[in-house]
Amino acid sequence: MLHDPLPCEDRVGRLRSEFPETGAMLIFNEKNIRYLTGFTGGEGALMAGPDWLTLLVDGRYATQARAETRGAEIFECRNRIEGIAAAARRHGVGSVGFESPFLSVEEYLNLKEALPEAALRPLPKDFGFLRAVKDLGEIDRIREAARISAEALASLRGMIRPGIREEEIALELEYRMRRGGAEKVSFETIVAAGANSAFPHATPGRRAIADGDCVMIDYGAVWDGYHSDETCTFFVGRASERQREVYRHVLEAHDRAIRAIRAGVSCGEIDGVARSHLAGEGLASAFAHGTGHGVGLDVHEAPRLAAGREELLRAGMVVTVEPGVYLPGLWGIRIEDTVLVTQEGCEILTRTSKDLTLI
Amino acid sequence: MLHDPLPCEDRVGRLRSEFPETGAMLIFNEKNIRYLTGFTGGEGALMAGPDWLTLLVDGRYATQARAETRGAEIFECRNRIEGIAAAARRHGVGSVGFESPFLSVEEYLNLKEALPEAALRPLPKDFGFLRAVKDLGEIDRIREAARISAEALASLRGMIRPGIREEEIALELEYRMRRGGAEKVSFETIVAAGANSAFPHATPGRRAIADGDCVMIDYGAVWDGYHSDETCTFFVGRASERQREVYRHVLEAHDRAIRAIRAGVSCGEIDGVARSHLAGEGLASAFAHGTGHGVGLDVHEAPRLAAGREELLRAGMVVTVEPGVYLPGLWGIRIEDTVLVTQEGCEILTRTSKDLTLI
Repeated sequence: MLHDPLPCEDRVGRLRSEFPETGAMLIFNEKNIRYLTGFTGGEGALMAGPDWLTLLVDGRYATQARAETRGAEIFECRNRIEGIAAAARRHGVGSVGFESPFLSVEEYLNLKEALPEAALRPLPKDFGFLRAVKDLGEIDRIREAARISAEALASLRGMIRPGIREEEIALELEYRMRRGGAEKVSFETIVAAGANSAFPHATPGRRAIADGDCVMIDYGAVWDGYHSDETCTFFVGRASERQREVYRHVLEAHDRAIRAIRAGVSCGEIDGVARSHLAGEGLASAFAHGTGHGVGLDVHEAPRLAAGREELLRAGMVVTVEPGVYLPGLWGIRIEDTVLVTQEGCEILTRTSKDLTLI
Repeated sequence: MLHDPLPCEDRVGRLRSEFPETGAMLIFNEKNIRYLTGFTGGEGALMAGPDWLTLLVDGRYATQARAETRGAEIFECRNRIEGIAAAARRHGVGSVGFESPFLSVEEYLNLKEALPEAALRPLPKDFGFLRAVKDLGEIDRIREAARISAEALASLRGMIRPGIREEEIALELEYRMRRGGAEKVSFETIVAAGANSAFPHATPGRRAIADGDCVMIDYGAVWDGYHSDETCTFFVGRASERQREVYRHVLEAHDRAIRAIRAGVSCGEIDGVARSHLAGEGLASAFAHGTGHGVGLDVHEAPRLAAGREELLRAGMVVTVEPGVYLPGLWGIRIEDTVLVTQEGCEILTRTSKDLTLI
């Protein structure tokens, strides 16, 4: 089931219909190239004309590209700029739209020099939205990444004791995800205890866990290219009344947002559900980030669940829901699940219980 | 000893003297920013005028930047393009040289729009050469990274037995480097057994080690930002006559190159020493990559030890020496050390014996 052929032809078709006004298109982002062709090499460029598709790779990647790629001709070149110029001349390309966030000025200048006759211009919108709705193969991969992650965390819960350091927990968790089959970790694991948990993006450090700490763990695995993303906040030994109360508020914000998710609702509206609940408890300013983001080949991708975002959720999108409350100098609590949007609601893909947990 | 203050003032002085013709300079590469200021956040931009230095970071990094940075004012901004525009106006900057390999076309267009009156142009040469000669603090850090790496490898040598998979060795080695104090691994560890070792950049896979395999391990650690890089090729149980012979040739090429290294010799000459030895043994075409590269804040940096490179080695440069022979379908042998160039010769920083080793 997990090794279904990638629907690359369909994806390239959507690319062409989204940018009908463009002559040829140049895709540089490695995840976009993978999405459109199956090539996982991470270097190269993809050039799409109205009825042709050429993947440009250097000699190191030619064998791999031929083995992995569907529907694109492979063009081996010394560097991608020369390759693009040769392919453009061969196909008589006069106008090229390119991914401007993923091309450096240096390469752009080289490309202009190599293709003086062509009109180069940035594609008018970001490609990322094309990847937002996942197909069944992608959802299976995210589900598997979430399963591997949760099993690894469950297996080391007993280690989270007074005396162990944040960085030791993070390393052990990453090791166990990979032992469990992850090809890599989704991002640098966050393990933040006590006052460190009040930083939303803390780096695990040498701080030892103490009795009464809350411990925020934000982690995920990659399986066959796809990411998972989950945050648990545990309490070591005991939780204060205030911690229990805030935990309840964050969990309620999380639950309400999840209950509000279904196809057709705007991303901003979901953010508003979580945000207004915390605001009603006097915690508006303690929740200083968005409610969620898409997850797929990247751990952060379209759509964003944040204030003012008018995009509508669609069935097949996979997004996180992760309200948090951060009290500088004291502690922070974030609760995050990754969910699959459906017509009627959503399905939670991450596996760890979000009930308040003393360990 | 290892927490010496960084000589940032001296480094910024060298930057200014290397680009005297430039009004203000914009540095985007995160390692270059770290080198010049000590800031390890990895995001932001550094702007250097003739007598001022401004680090632009967003709110997430302001506290960290103030704690880490020496000699630069910290300017907090919503995004780096807006921040650059504001700083340029404040200092009355009319002309800006920027690192064109590290600025995307999208950001460049935003910058042009935000600073319509300024002349923006790429810096005329790559900044990397400024980092090629290391100071004592940097050398200590590389030495420590090399020590951590070699200890981790030594500790798991007993695991390299028939039946264990390449990916298991790689994971275990990475885990042990981090347990030993590495902040991360230097690059994705290569463990390539049997025919896989004939690919210079193999990815560890599910292949189990078999009796009689050669196993190539290319690995390194990062300590306080600095990388190590070392390759060992071991033989499991036995080595054939042909393997012993080729190993001897590669080791001799490696040893000769190392003996040739000293301040004042050109990089191309060192490459030629290794290459001509292998050519003399009929192995010219089997050695299809350069002999080495600089190591520091990046695992690959200036200088490159390759054919035609006329740059002269200088005392304090840290470079790899890594000849290899790859026989497609059969096996490959690479032997790599990282060395410190001195006036009279060099000192080997990596720690594992390169004598032919059966395990």
